[in-house]
Formats: sequence, structure tokens, C-alpha cells
Amino acid sequence: MSQDKFALLGNICYSTGPNKIHTIERGYLVVSGDKIVGAFDTLPDEYSGVRVEDYGEALIIPGMTDLHVHAPQFPFRGIGMDLELLDWLNTYTFPEEAKYSSIDYAEKIYEFFTQALKASPITRAVIFSTIHVPATRILFDKLEASGLISYVGKVNMDRNSPDDLRETTTTSLADTELLINEAKNYKRTHAILTPRFTPSCSDDLMKGLGDLKAKYDLPVQSHLCENPSEVELVRELCPTSKNYADTYDRFGLLDDKAIMAHCVYLNDDEIELMKVRKSFVAHCPQSNINLASGIAPVKKFLELGINVGLGTDIAAGASLSMFRAITDAIGVSKLYWRLVDEDFHALTFSETFYMATMGGGKFFGQVGSFLPGYEADVLVLDEKNSGVRRDNLLERLEQTIYLADENVILIAKYVAGKKL
Amino acid sequence: MSQDKFALLGNICYSTGPNKIHTIERGYLVVSGDKIVGAFDTLPDEYSGVRVEDYGEALIIPGMTDLHVHAPQFPFRGIGMDLELLDWLNTYTFPEEAKYSSIDYAEKIYEFFTQALKASPITRAVIFSTIHVPATRILFDKLEASGLISYVGKVNMDRNSPDDLRETTTTSLADTELLINEAKNYKRTHAILTPRFTPSCSDDLMKGLGDLKAKYDLPVQSHLCENPSEVELVRELCPTSKNYADTYDRFGLLDDKAIMAHCVYLNDDEIELMKVRKSFVAHCPQSNINLASGIAPVKKFLELGINVGLGTDIAAGASLSMFRAITDAIGVSKLYWRLVDEDFHALTFSETFYMATMGGGKFFGQVGSFLPGYEADVLVLDEKNSGVRRDNLLERLEQTIYLADENVILIAKYVAGKKL
Repeated sequence: MSQDKFALLGNICYSTGPNKIHTIERGYLVVSGDKIVGAFDTLPDEYSGVRVEDYGEALIIPGMTDLHVHAPQFPFRGIGMDLELLDWLNTYTFPEEAKYSSIDYAEKIYEFFTQALKASPITRAVIFSTIHVPATRILFDKLEASGLISYVGKVNMDRNSPDDLRETTTTSLADTELLINEAKNYKRTHAILTPRFTPSCSDDLMKGLGDLKAKYDLPVQSHLCENPSEVELVRELCPTSKNYADTYDRFGLLDDKAIMAHCVYLNDDEIELMKVRKSFVAHCPQSNINLASGIAPVKKFLELGINVGLGTDIAAGASLSMFRAITDAIGVSKLYWRLVDEDFHALTFSETFYMATMGGGKFFGQVGSFLPGYEADVLVLDEKNSGVRRDNLLERLEQTIYLADENVILIAKYVAGKKL
Repeated sequence: MSQDKFALLGNICYSTGPNKIHTIERGYLVVSGDKIVGAFDTLPDEYSGVRVEDYGEALIIPGMTDLHVHAPQFPFRGIGMDLELLDWLNTYTFPEEAKYSSIDYAEKIYEFFTQALKASPITRAVIFSTIHVPATRILFDKLEASGLISYVGKVNMDRNSPDDLRETTTTSLADTELLINEAKNYKRTHAILTPRFTPSCSDDLMKGLGDLKAKYDLPVQSHLCENPSEVELVRELCPTSKNYADTYDRFGLLDDKAIMAHCVYLNDDEIELMKVRKSFVAHCPQSNINLASGIAPVKKFLELGINVGLGTDIAAGASLSMFRAITDAIGVSKLYWRLVDEDFHALTFSETFYMATMGGGKFFGQVGSFLPGYEADVLVLDEKNSGVRRDNLLERLEQTIYLADENVILIAKYVAGKKL
């Protein structure tokens, strides 16, 4: 029997799709190498000799994917929450991101960020850095060392930002290609093209990024239809584009390896495009509350079969907690139902748990479930002893997620079969 | 120099009204007995000999008042969040509350609840118990021993609930009067009349409670206009009342010592009544999200000068965190602005911090500020070392509240001058 097989014993819960959470009380999650063999009521005979880690009554659930987070914004989360997107960017975000011209500052903050990520329920993340190459290298190094699996994008921006946070088109593309090639030396940390958003990127820059995408077969992350003023600005900036989504799509940047954060104000054509292109929506409910952006019609996206995951969107989202992202997604969908459109039902716990695990995990391949063949990203969670119920596994999972940091202890975390 | 004078040294922040947070870097908060003398840049000569507790760079802010919380619902917070109010009550709440016929169960859960309250930023709370006298006595005892200051109400309900959670009118009133008299033996824990809500209370019961209020000069807490179906139910149950608020007011239950939780769907007459009666609105934003109740127009209440505080509303609110209540209140007000009425501005951080401290504290008298003569409820808070900013005291306060449990350590807590 090979050494790389083992089983985790505990109360297992995982999504098999948006509408189904499978639970096994005191079940066995069998792992072989970096993959899930399966989750079983009793240990199958063929695995009877493997090492079993018994986690008692703890919960065993899939690791979570943060599909949209800005590492350099970690220091000012929870500040300036009285502004909308464009003012918030100019007042808080751009001045903060400019600080990452200092490698000392990057070293300090990216260490805090990486440690916080490592201590969280997040096993995979898709991350914005800044425009700066040396600072982005530091972030690559720290994430690689953490054992987490991630995509990291050096941000591209050649217009509509302060002098100290703006590149020339040529430099932006050259620096991006430099880091694309350096990224090949990393095992767990991957490059991703990262045009900040259309207002920050000239057509020439977008075209160059499209060329890089074609040349290196790279994924893309950006922002789309977050705020009414932003949508209007894009309309003014790109008079020949059909809509905001088209400002990416016309340069070949929208496909099944593209993540578009927010998507609060997609029109019908844009929704259809996201579906046809099989692109991912990163739903960031806390961010959309904090910047008064609005409420994305996520239920509709799910019903149409559009790929949807959740993002914390630090620092417009104040919390790095994916548990908060799950419950905030449910919460805003309820308000959407109540205040905007009674024909849409609110998101269920099952749907949002799926989005945090399988939905976002899909961007990384077979990630975020315990179905056979999925990569073995696993969280072992227990509650502090605070008078909570334990008589129903599905209720217990819901309660664990709702009580978030207040009452949850992360006992163990595995990424692709490796215990951190 | 008297022994009961002391000063706390640190970074002081407190509301002086809804629109002003006063900050003093490394200032002195002077306390005499149970009262605030004042907050000063430098220690006044007349206090130069008092004991100074130096809290370094920690934040020193007023204690917070939870104006609406159900102690017996502590075990099932974060469960069943897919239901609206009336279904949630019948499916989860009433069966749970029926368990408090057992004093063993009450002993166990109320211990968890009281310890959680003690460990939180809450110094004062207004609390629902259940209909049960022995269990309510246990809650009184535990809260009294905790050092916190609270009102606790034995719940009255004589209709529309299961057999094991329904009283006769006579028993309900007799038990209430019994506990009113027993409560006189407690120093920090006070009785409050607690008709659950109109659907649970017959006119005879309401009339009897009005008589008790007149006889003993007691405060009142209940629920008002939380959910459209509930409002409709009250309309059917009380055809002769002008509106929902009138179902309390007609029995003399609305005055300046009454707290009405939620107030999401007050009509103009009801808003005017709340203003004229000087009653308190307990705004419970997380609860209103979780039960899809809607968004209370709190900005309007503040502008009209209606008394408003914040409630966690465990278990419809999943979290006992008043910090969450502050940021959730801001969040839902932003969505109200964006989705419902662009003529109303969102709540500011200053307004919601006020509501959590002075606004709710007003129910207890001069509580929730560091203005001279206020009762000395004080929190000393610091951040875990997580790469946050510290260059502006007001921003630091905002960040501390937004990061809630994630990054905050409660170093010390004083209630009416006494360190817990």
C-alpha cells in the first residue's frame, strides 16, 4: 500500500452541485496523493490499512476559493466606507497601492496578508497585486511558501490614475510578460492577466493583453459593471464598444478562464455573453454593500448556468472571511427579493456554500468537492463550546458558517492532499 | 483624595451626538465612582494624584447597549435562515423556547449566553427571556453576577403559540407581577414588561400589562412592524386598532420607557406616534436581513429625533457582535438608498456608532458617552497585529468596528465605574 493514501474521519459535508449538500456522520474521507478517492460511511476494504486521522465530532468540509481579492488593500479594509467606487478608488485605494513601489512595505504587508489567508478557510485564491514588479515578486514568493494555491496578477493600468500609479502601455505589457515567464518557476502560484478595469486601461493596453493571452494561454481577471457611475464612465470612454463586457471581449479577454468581479449591472446582452463565453462571475456581496454598489442578480446567473464563485474583495469587502461572504450573499439576495424583484427567490444556503467551494473551485479545475477525482482541499472545523446545537449535521454546518469567526476553530487544513 | 477616582490613559473616542465623534490621542478619561468626570488632553491638576491605568496605544470607547436580544434563542442562531418571521417562529423559535420549562436546560444555556455577553463589547442589554418563571430567575441571577447592567423580561404570550409555550391570561399576569416584585432584590438587573408581540397577546393580557405598568412604573419591550405578513396578521387580529403601534398604545404601553424592535414598516401615523411618545426603536439590521424582513428607514427616524438604538436580536440576528450591528446598519442603509429611495442618504459611521453607544444607552439614563456625568461604561480595545493602519484615530476606530471579532481584542471593560 502506498504511503500517500490516508483517510480523515469526522462529520463530512460537501456540495455535489448548487442544490445538494451531501452529509456523512462520522464518515471517512479517503485521499490518495493530491486527489479525493471518495467519502464513505465506512472505510472500504481496499483502504482498510491506511492511516486514519480521527477528528472526532469535528466538521470536515471542502476548502474554499476566494475568487477576487486585492492583497495590497489589506491594510485599509474597513476604512472610508462612506464612499462609492470611483471616489473610494481615488481617495483611498490608489494612494495605498502607490506605496508598493517600496519593497519594504510590500514585504511587511504581504506577510500579514499571506498569514491571514493561510489561517483562513481559503485554500485557493485569485489575487490582484499592484502595477509593481518587485512587490508582485514578493507576493509570489510568500504565497508559494504558504502552501496555498493561487493566481496572482500584476495589475495593468495606463490611464485615469495618479502619476505614481500609472504605467506607459509599453512598460505595462513588458513587465507583465516578464512576470509571466518568471511565474513558470513556481509550482503553486500562477500568473493571471489583470487589467484593473476598463477605465484604467487604454485600448492599446487591452489589445496587448489580448495578444499575451493568446501567446501564453493565460487566464484573466478584472472588474465588470460594479457601479452605475463606473458603467456610465465606461460608456463615455468606449463609445464604439457595444457595452462594458464588450470592452474586454473585443480583445479576446473573455473566455472560460476569465473572472469578472461584481457584475451587478449586466444588461441582457452581457449576461448572454458571460454565459456563452463560460466566464466566471466573482460575486462580492460585502463589497457591494460597503461601496453602496447594489445587489448582483446572482440567482439569475445560477439559473442560467453561468459560473459563479464568491470573493471577499478586500478592501471594499472589509473581511477576509469566506464564511461572511456566504452569509452576506444569502442576505443581499433576500433584500433583492424583498425590495427589487419578488419573482426571484433568495439564494439558499446550499447555493452559496456551493459557490464558495465548487463554484469558485471550478476555476482551478476539479476543486471544492469531495466527489471522486477532486483535488483534496479539506478543512477540519470545530466550534468553541458555546451552547450551540449539534443534533443535525446540515444545521450544524449552517450555524458554523453563520457564526463565522465568532465560534469556529480551524483545526486542520489540507491543500491538494498536503496538510499545511 | 478619594479612592474611587481614577483615570484611564489611551486613545479616546466617544460620541457627543449623532454627528460627532470626539477623539483625543493619548488622553485621560477621569472617572469618579460610577460616573465620568470628563475626557482630557492632559490630566487636570485637581486629579493629578489619582491612579492612572495606562493602556498605551489602545482605544478607549464607551460601552455598548444591546437594545434587543433573546437570551433563550442563543443555541440556534445561524440556523433556519431560509424562513421569514412567522414560519421561523413556528419552526425554530417556539420549539426552542419551550425547552426552558427545564431549569437544567436554562442553567446550561443562560450560562453560555451570559459569558458570551460578558466577553463582548456590550455593557448594557435589554433582554427577552421566555414565559417560564424559574428559567427567568436563573437568567436574572446569572446576569446580576456578571456585573453587566440589564433589563430582563419574562415573556407574555396567551395566544397563537403551541400548547407548551402558551399561558393563560391570568397566569401570565400573575407570574409577571411575581417577578416584578422579586426583581426589587437585584441591584443591576431590572424587570421589564415583555408582551412578545401583538399576535401572541390577547387584548385582556395587554390591558393587564398596561395596569402593571401604571402600578409599578415599568418599562416595556416588544416588536413592531417587522414583516409584511406580521403586519397583515395584526390588522386581522385587531380590527378596531388604528394600526399596529396602536395595539400597544391603546393600553398605555408606549412611552419614553418603551422599546419597539424593528419598525421596518411603520406608516406615517406610527412614526409620529413613536416620536410623540418618545419611545425607542431597536434597529436590528442583521435580523432584518436574515428573515428577509426588509430595511428600516432609520435615517428618517434619526432626522425626526426619534430615539434609536441597535439590537443584535439573537437568534434572528446570528451574531452577538454589536460591531456587526453597527456595520450592518450602515450597509443596509446604503442598499436602502441605492434600491429604495435615493432621496435619503445612507447612515454614517458616526450615526451608527452613536446608536450603539449613546442612542441605546439613553434607555438606561446618561449612558454611552464620556461627557461629564455619564455613567462610566468603558471598553479598552486593541488590534491583533495584522498590518492595519494606525495613523488617524477616527479611521482606526472605523476599522476596529469593521474588522469586528476578526482583529479586535477586548482588553478591559468597565460597567458604571467597576472593572469586570
